[in-house]
Amino acid sequence: MFFLTPVLVAVVCILIVWIFKNGDGSSKRRKGEPRARAEVRPWVDEDLKDNTDLHQGEEGANDRQESEEDVEHIPFSHTRYPEKEMVKRSQEFYALLSKRRSVRFISSEQVPMEVIDNVIKTAGTAPSGAHTEPWTFVVVKDPDVKHKIREIIEEEEEINYLKRMGRQWVTDLKKLRTNWVKEYLDTAPVLILIFKQVHGVAASGKRKVHYYNEISVSIACGILLAALQNVGLVTVTTTPLNCGPRLRVLLGRPTNEKLLMLLPVGYASKEATVPNLTRKPVDQIRVIV
Amino acid sequence: MFFLTPVLVAVVCILIVWIFKNGDGSSKRRKGEPRARAEVRPWVDEDLKDNTDLHQGEEGANDRQESEEDVEHIPFSHTRYPEKEMVKRSQEFYALLSKRRSVRFISSEQVPMEVIDNVIKTAGTAPSGAHTEPWTFVVVKDPDVKHKIREIIEEEEEINYLKRMGRQWVTDLKKLRTNWVKEYLDTAPVLILIFKQVHGVAASGKRKVHYYNEISVSIACGILLAALQNVGLVTVTTTPLNCGPRLRVLLGRPTNEKLLMLLPVGYASKEATVPNLTRKPVDQIRVIV
Repeated sequence: MFFLTPVLVAVVCILIVWIFKNGDGSSKRRKGEPRARAEVRPWVDEDLKDNTDLHQGEEGANDRQESEEDVEHIPFSHTRYPEKEMVKRSQEFYALLSKRRSVRFISSEQVPMEVIDNVIKTAGTAPSGAHTEPWTFVVVKDPDVKHKIREIIEEEEEINYLKRMGRQWVTDLKKLRTNWVKEYLDTAPVLILIFKQVHGVAASGKRKVHYYNEISVSIACGILLAALQNVGLVTVTTTPLNCGPRLRVLLGRPTNEKLLMLLPVGYASKEATVPNLTRKPVDQIRVIV
Repeated sequence: MFFLTPVLVAVVCILIVWIFKNGDGSSKRRKGEPRARAEVRPWVDEDLKDNTDLHQGEEGANDRQESEEDVEHIPFSHTRYPEKEMVKRSQEFYALLSKRRSVRFISSEQVPMEVIDNVIKTAGTAPSGAHTEPWTFVVVKDPDVKHKIREIIEEEEEINYLKRMGRQWVTDLKKLRTNWVKEYLDTAPVLILIFKQVHGVAASGKRKVHYYNEISVSIACGILLAALQNVGLVTVTTTPLNCGPRLRVLLGRPTNEKLLMLLPVGYASKEATVPNLTRKPVDQIRVIV
């Protein structure tokens, strides 16, 4: 009896510790992960980083391959300019685009809808992974909807700023306020909300993976910004942090669409100012090999 | 003595199990994670999805806030066109961009380097998160380096295609070969490799988080594509799968730069063809609210 007791106690202890550690470990991982992520990535928009599109695996891979091989190829015709004209065109386009600035002071004056349609059509000429064209441009003109969008964004922005600033900053609330009050969401005659379609639906009814959808839609946005600058309208490129799901529901977009960007569009207001920033010279952004 | 032994054994056992479980748990998590990711996301370029930029937390947040508030604001001046001219400009820009196609048949004829410089300067006018300008454009003209790039990309592409196709496809190797042979990497007079800088270095020597760097660099690429089309040069937007790290090392770029895109640039070759694809009409990509 006295000889067995230490062995028994040892076995019981091993079992207890084992059970305790296992239970603790799994609950720690399950509960701990989202919390750890929130702490480590305070400035990542969870909706933007939504990886829904990555979990479909290879479902659509064959569809894609087939569509690429089925399509007939036709001769490509293109305008070729003399060298001197190429140089001139490249200079003029640079001069036009280099005047573009992110403008937060937008006049309430209406803009021609034909122009808005044309700039969106231009954005739609962007290339996309496997020609999926995974973009939806929601043009909001309705003042009530614009105001609801403003309410959602300001609410989330306030939370973002207060969380981020911590105690030392919150003392000067008045100063901070300018950062999350987005008047342009009411005043701009048009808001363009750009959604990326993280997957599509194939003819078979199956989900079709949209490879590189975020990159494709961002490229389309780059072309949209160039098109807006070309017609003399201004905007500011915003990525409303954590507002995606609420704005998606407000605008009645399907769950395969995730908000990527919001552009308030209009004429610059007369008193518009911009930060006095400069851009890097070409030899700091370009390397020749 | 006999009374103390069970207690001693219990303490020793608890310690042994504790140490064993702790060691096991952490090694399990470290080894298991990358494998699980590789299985779930077979078609994600691991280098593109490199989240290095997300692990710095708030380190740079204050730097950003300060830099935004320190900058002086100046009046914004902008060209405003009459409404009729706006409509005309929007139509013309759409007409120009709608002729853009991804062209894989590129002539070996040299292109004016002044034009390449200007289109890169134009791309550099893109907006970026907190004005970080997180892009590097590597212009490769050297035929040996171009050929090394081709070797790396074709090697990886062959693996990608064979893995992806599975057995049923591999029977027709000849047909497949056309998919991973990238002749344009040798023939195009210029390759532009676009790297995103996932973080920068602040004046203090600390890492500076580059928020939304992938979106910013993709927007710059959209503007680059528009600028190329404007001068009559062609390209094809490629995202070489899994080649990023090798190409980065080949070109001697630092570890904070990740390859996002590769654009072979030149004149279209005379026999160039393109797939006979159409684009979605505007009412399929635009919603009005």
